Amino acid sequence: MAIVRLLVSCPDRPGIVAAIAQEILGLGGNILQSDQHTTDPSGGAFFMRVEFDLQEPVDRTALAAAVDRLAHTFAMQVTVRFADEIKRAAIFVSRLDHCLVDLLWRWKAGDLPMTIPLIVSNHPDLKPAVDAFGVPFAVFPITKETKREREDEILQRLDGNVDVIILARYMQILTGVFVARYPGRIINIHHSFLPAFVGGRPYEQAALRGVKIIGATAHYATENLDEGPIIEQDVVRVSHRDGVSDLVRKGKDIEKAVLARAVRWHLEDRLLVYRNRTLVFAC
Amino acid sequence: MAIVRLLVSCPDRPGIVAAIAQEILGLGGNILQSDQHTTDPSGGAFFMRVEFDLQEPVDRTALAAAVDRLAHTFAMQVTVRFADEIKRAAIFVSRLDHCLVDLLWRWKAGDLPMTIPLIVSNHPDLKPAVDAFGVPFAVFPITKETKREREDEILQRLDGNVDVIILARYMQILTGVFVARYPGRIINIHHSFLPAFVGGRPYEQAALRGVKIIGATAHYATENLDEGPIIEQDVVRVSHRDGVSDLVRKGKDIEKAVLARAVRWHLEDRLLVYRNRTLVFAC
Amino acid sequence: MAIVRLLVSCPDRPGIVAAIAQEILGLGGNILQSDQHTTDPSGGAFFMRVEFDLQEPVDRTALAAAVDRLAHTFAMQVTVRFADEIKRAAIFVSRLDHCLVDLLWRWKAGDLPMTIPLIVSNHPDLKPAVDAFGVPFAVFPITKETKREREDEILQRLDGNVDVIILARYMQILTGVFVARYPGRIINIHHSFLPAFVGGRPYEQAALRGVKIIGATAHYATENLDEGPIIEQDVVRVSHRDGVSDLVRKGKDIEKAVLARAVRWHLEDRLLVYRNRTLVFAC
Amino acid sequence: MAIVRLLVSCPDRPGIVAAIAQEILGLGGNILQSDQHTTDPSGGAFFMRVEFDLQEPVDRTALAAAVDRLAHTFAMQVTVRFADEIKRAAIFVSRLDHCLVDLLWRWKAGDLPMTIPLIVSNHPDLKPAVDAFGVPFAVFPITKETKREREDEILQRLDGNVDVIILARYMQILTGVFVARYPGRIINIHHSFLPAFVGGRPYEQAALRGVKIIGATAHYATENLDEGPIIEQDVVRVSHRDGVSDLVRKGKDIEKAVLARAVRWHLEDRLLVYRNRTLVFAC
Repeated sequence: MAIVRLLVSCPDRPGIVAAIAQEILGLGGNILQSDQHTTDPSGGAFFMRVEFDLQEPVDRTALAAAVDRLAHTFAMQVTVRFADEIKRAAIFVSRLDHCLVDLLWRWKAGDLPMTIPLIVSNHPDLKPAVDAFGVPFAVFPITKETKREREDEILQRLDGNVDVIILARYMQILTGVFVARYPGRIINIHHSFLPAFVGGRPYEQAALRGVKIIGATAHYATENLDEGPIIEQDVVRVSHRDGVSDLVRKGKDIEKAVLARAVRWHLEDRLLVYRNRTLVFAC
Repeated sequence: MAIVRLLVSCPDRPGIVAAIAQEILGLGGNILQSDQHTTDPSGGAFFMRVEFDLQEPVDRTALAAAVDRLAHTFAMQVTVRFADEIKRAAIFVSRLDHCLVDLLWRWKAGDLPMTIPLIVSNHPDLKPAVDAFGVPFAVFPITKETKREREDEILQRLDGNVDVIILARYMQILTGVFVARYPGRIINIHHSFLPAFVGGRPYEQAALRGVKIIGATAHYATENLDEGPIIEQDVVRVSHRDGVSDLVRKGKDIEKAVLARAVRWHLEDRLLVYRNRTLVFAC
Repeated sequence: MAIVRLLVSCPDRPGIVAAIAQEILGLGGNILQSDQHTTDPSGGAFFMRVEFDLQEPVDRTALAAAVDRLAHTFAMQVTVRFADEIKRAAIFVSRLDHCLVDLLWRWKAGDLPMTIPLIVSNHPDLKPAVDAFGVPFAVFPITKETKREREDEILQRLDGNVDVIILARYMQILTGVFVARYPGRIINIHHSFLPAFVGGRPYEQAALRGVKIIGATAHYATENLDEGPIIEQDVVRVSHRDGVSDLVRKGKDIEKAVLARAVRWHLEDRLLVYRNRTLVFAC
Repeated sequence: MAIVRLLVSCPDRPGIVAAIAQEILGLGGNILQSDQHTTDPSGGAFFMRVEFDLQEPVDRTALAAAVDRLAHTFAMQVTVRFADEIKRAAIFVSRLDHCLVDLLWRWKAGDLPMTIPLIVSNHPDLKPAVDAFGVPFAVFPITKETKREREDEILQRLDGNVDVIILARYMQILTGVFVARYPGRIINIHHSFLPAFVGGRPYEQAALRGVKIIGATAHYATENLDEGPIIEQDVVRVSHRDGVSDLVRKGKDIEKAVLARAVRWHLEDRLLVYRNRTLVFAC
């Protein structure tokens, strides 16, 4: 059996669920899970994630035709994914290893359905850690002057091999040119509860402001740093007893957890971006 | 527009979503929200909550016929609810007022869609608090000898006027006879994180065991106390610095919050019981 | 027995705890709880909250002399409080009742050790709710032109009767003149996770930004709105399924909880402000 | 500077804090952090954790004499620790690697102040993972018949080299003889929110009971399995959408987090056991 997932958005009107379900039935599919949301009873937007089984071998022509009919009839955006078409993720890192190592261990434990064709870094430091997992590691040192050039080299290296890019505390800001090549497919982790403490040194900012909670935010990267659609956020309590090292430790834990959830949801096709917001179809 | 909700369970097989959606479309309905779950890809149980709009006046005969067709074709259990048919809730209390008062304030604020035809107590103490809300309050003093007799009086008083009973720290154990009259329609709040600390004095038990977290559990009442289907649970941290009064205070807060969520979900038809477990279709 | 609390801050150096404990012993006191913190092992600031028993009748002259010796020797700021000198709180409200009612119920339940000499509002709407608790309610309607004048009337009314002011969703910005009269004694609740979404309409801001968590912040009021020392914060998860009414409901719950904790800590002398940050000595 | 920590318990009476602080001052020490708790104003138990600086070289004879005076005067239990005397931890594992790997990474990141003289397992499976960290790994296969014998071999191997034993999902129940050799120095992680779901297969138990929250518990091992003093607990939400693999994944995350906190607190001398309960002196 092949598991197929549809992520759907379109203007709302009666009959959309019936049409989708009818097309799936016509393909011989059995719906396993569906989750549908309408922004507004009177003329809003319609969103749906539906997961269904198809008999092997899948008749891809029939599936494409069904999706085309839906897209045409309802002015629908449809993303079609097969659960067994595992996504290929490139992970970008600099020197901090906690997010990278956490992703690698979860991946190795079978909790993140992806392959990792390449890990990219602007520093060689984490090569040994990566080697232990048998994953290719490529260093692209970056200076202000060489950034665009290096990015092109990276893009060339990734080209055709990568479905999603995970910025696991990559300390280089990607240019708009680069981001535009992977729209909605670059996940970043920001070490604060956005939109509080945008920009650099959020822990110092948080300590100075005396907040009682710190957080982390995973979001899709867009040209404007820290302003892309938020995927997931979480927080942890802090107090005056927490010194800088405690904040860093707590921060790392929350960053790892938030990034891992965001990545898993992306890999499982649970995310749908609409007007710079992310709908999460997850438990 | 009338908003209709279906809560559906049946053995899984292909075509159920399509059939439901098609029937709704046939009635002229527009699906606003649907949430569907299958326990097991290969031959499990199918569950769905679907909310849709119908033009007024609703053709109830047509709706009933549609539901009958579904029930018959798929061996389906279907609950049909109209969002504007506000449920009538009886609240049972003893002397502790926190859950009662919290429910009354949420109700007054418009956050709990219900009417309250009656508040029942085995003590007169909370009459003044209730009077301030203009809600009828009836006292049924109970002793071990008179319990069944009093329960019959209560049942008589409720008969035909009440859709759901909320035990808001009602310190009497209902008999099996009583419970059987409102199956799946009596919500209880237990002041512990079940199944830890079943029975009486859970805070004392928790303090003796030195737990670091205490909780509360809202569940449907069944004949076996503390063993009915769990609707909602939540917890709060405690430490050695928490004295008995702190535990009681924290416990009250968590009880109120958990009970209010459970009640709201019941009122909004978001709960479906299956094999002593509760599926919650909520955000 | 009288319970005395000291809140202490001074430059750190050896011997401070010994001196404080020795003075308390000299008074015949028994330390019940103490909590001490130094910002930096090498020459930072020293903070301590200590709670001790004294035999009745308390020799206040001896106590004052002891505190003077400590203050003089260590350049110490000392606040002395008697647990049985219940603080007098004025609550300011506008039209939203959830924080007010929550405070009143907690107060009535004995969970907030305070008296309430007056509730101040710029609108008459909440008078009935307040009357039910037998608390005086005074209306001071405010326009842009009359603000300072009205504030003076309020100050006159409060003068000598009030130890702390609680802004329970009071929708008027107090002037610097007013705030300066109750430094470190005005507690405000802001309906966002500061410093995210400062200013008005934080829920709309949060919904537009697509955050996954919303929060509330209790802080001491200072001249610069939303920038005073943060006392407490908490958060709750939201999703795309939460409509405006859900955000408002969840927001109210978190506001009530955060404000109640901040107020209780203030009443129990658990808060110490230092460089626009608040140390919380609580469990 | 040497940082010294005292963990103190004794019957309460006036003058204890003064005496402790005076002794520390007499040694030339500066108190960095102290946290004191009394169970009951009228004649309860006194607990304190105090951390102070001493000039190097430390006069250990004078320190011992000071502690003796305190112990004698107040019938006090005193534990003396030097922060730079890093504890030696043996980690016991079976086949599940998540807790082990998490501890190793935290240790490598400098977040767990310990050395790891040995990792013990009843299976060889995790040797490669451990080798990557350069830590000795010893396999002691265990059958019902050989358990006591193997335990003696393990004890011999540990003897004199180990201060604390961490059971990181070690699937063998230690005998009372073994446990008695490391009283209050064996930390276990149990994959449920104790005392709910004691015994085996807690996730299955939790799923059957339909709980809405699952948890993990770190506790000191005692002869009676799952009944030792609880150190730390935490929980995570689950729903009907969580299949077995989701429960396992969420459970692993919460186990890792809870065990790491418990271990760090033990290593930092923040735990004090009293009547089968653990006082945690932590932020």
